[in-house]
Amino acid sequence: MAGSLGRICKGLKRLGSLIHPSASVSVRATFARTMLGLPSSFFLKPRDFSLPNSSWGSEMMRLYKHYNSQCEVEMEGGETREGPWQRLPSYNRFLKYAPGGVYLSKIIQSKARLFTRNCRDPGATFEYALYFNSEEQKCVGIFQAGHLLEGPPGHVHGGAIATMIDTVTGAHATILSGPVVTANLNINYRRPIPLGSTVLIESSLDKKEGKKIFITCKVTSSDGSKVHTDTTALFVSIGVSHLLLGS
Amino acid sequence: MAGSLGRICKGLKRLGSLIHPSASVSVRATFARTMLGLPSSFFLKPRDFSLPNSSWGSEMMRLYKHYNSQCEVEMEGGETREGPWQRLPSYNRFLKYAPGGVYLSKIIQSKARLFTRNCRDPGATFEYALYFNSEEQKCVGIFQAGHLLEGPPGHVHGGAIATMIDTVTGAHATILSGPVVTANLNINYRRPIPLGSTVLIESSLDKKEGKKIFITCKVTSSDGSKVHTDTTALFVSIGVSHLLLGS
Repeated sequence: MAGSLGRICKGLKRLGSLIHPSASVSVRATFARTMLGLPSSFFLKPRDFSLPNSSWGSEMMRLYKHYNSQCEVEMEGGETREGPWQRLPSYNRFLKYAPGGVYLSKIIQSKARLFTRNCRDPGATFEYALYFNSEEQKCVGIFQAGHLLEGPPGHVHGGAIATMIDTVTGAHATILSGPVVTANLNINYRRPIPLGSTVLIESSLDKKEGKKIFITCKVTSSDGSKVHTDTTALFVSIGVSHLLLGS
Repeated sequence: MAGSLGRICKGLKRLGSLIHPSASVSVRATFARTMLGLPSSFFLKPRDFSLPNSSWGSEMMRLYKHYNSQCEVEMEGGETREGPWQRLPSYNRFLKYAPGGVYLSKIIQSKARLFTRNCRDPGATFEYALYFNSEEQKCVGIFQAGHLLEGPPGHVHGGAIATMIDTVTGAHATILSGPVVTANLNINYRRPIPLGSTVLIESSLDKKEGKKIFITCKVTSSDGSKVHTDTTALFVSIGVSHLLLGS
């Protein structure tokens, strides 16, 4: 499968070079459909798993609305412009982040699913949404912990917390530096997280040194008053081919 | 639920004090059934999820047989005695580790499931078995990574690896010191783990200082030739009531 992926990525790169990056999605879609005979499904957006569902509790919805309201700011005269925060989409296969991801995932069939999005039962495991603030170089995750994430009785497993920390800090490092791999996670567990509760995961850039991205991350109660964990994380930039083909 | 748990644990403690700990399980069961009118289902063993199933590949089976063969040693004359390793059972609810766990889990119904045993599809997520060597003070996990644990394309999510490290080192610390909570995990990710592969997780006691248990842990390829991660872990002993009631 790795070989096929490599070839398809090269193909996508060639396709991308035909179309100027500043062109709008619809212009690029029309161009590609016309010139390359690609079906319209190539340009369909995959399902975004970070949108609210019936399992989201009131605290999760409050935080979602809080950050969403800062993604678009209303100007005088009723017009809107981009706000300080940007919501990041979340898919259940890595492939779906590529251009034409829905189409690609039909071609390259695999049973593999992203660990944090592998459960079909809403609310049972990881419910979360991520936001990025380019001005402050910060990333935030809002996370509601489902009943299938148990470690100590009634509380979230340390590995599930580590998974969400890796997810938020990894997304943050990727936005800052392109494809990365986790090199180190150093997590201090201060206070257990009750199952069913909603927490905030705040990721801040510490420094960048060459290919290394140093990040600090805090998991707190949704009002920020209690610290559940604090973490330092190190990521290393890698090439796309390295990411797809492994090492 | 926490209140009920506390009361039930006190009850179990009282029940336990009636029966001498050196009595065999069957003697204690007969005593309790007779004296206390407990149904026989109280003494049923819960399902052990660390036994082989149809999803286990050849490498997982090889390691399982390797460690299992060292749990019982044949003596001269054909008799057997305990070997250096001991296989640890693995249940999908914490309650099931308590005496009468199957029965308790029927009384205290909950949708909560242990994170690493929450999937009904064999082979899809975490397949593992744990062994303890009391002479060497070591714990070993054999782990086959399923297709729903994906992080980087075709490879295991850093959070899923952290989850297995927490599981093996946490079980190790619990054997050494009774109930514990994870205080720190410091994980260096050296080499990605391909989905579907089987790895070894070796946990060694570094030192004990009061309530603190310091452990080191390596995840390697199944033949030990490649290091995937190395970790230091810190656990802190806590009381059973603290574990059940949270903080």
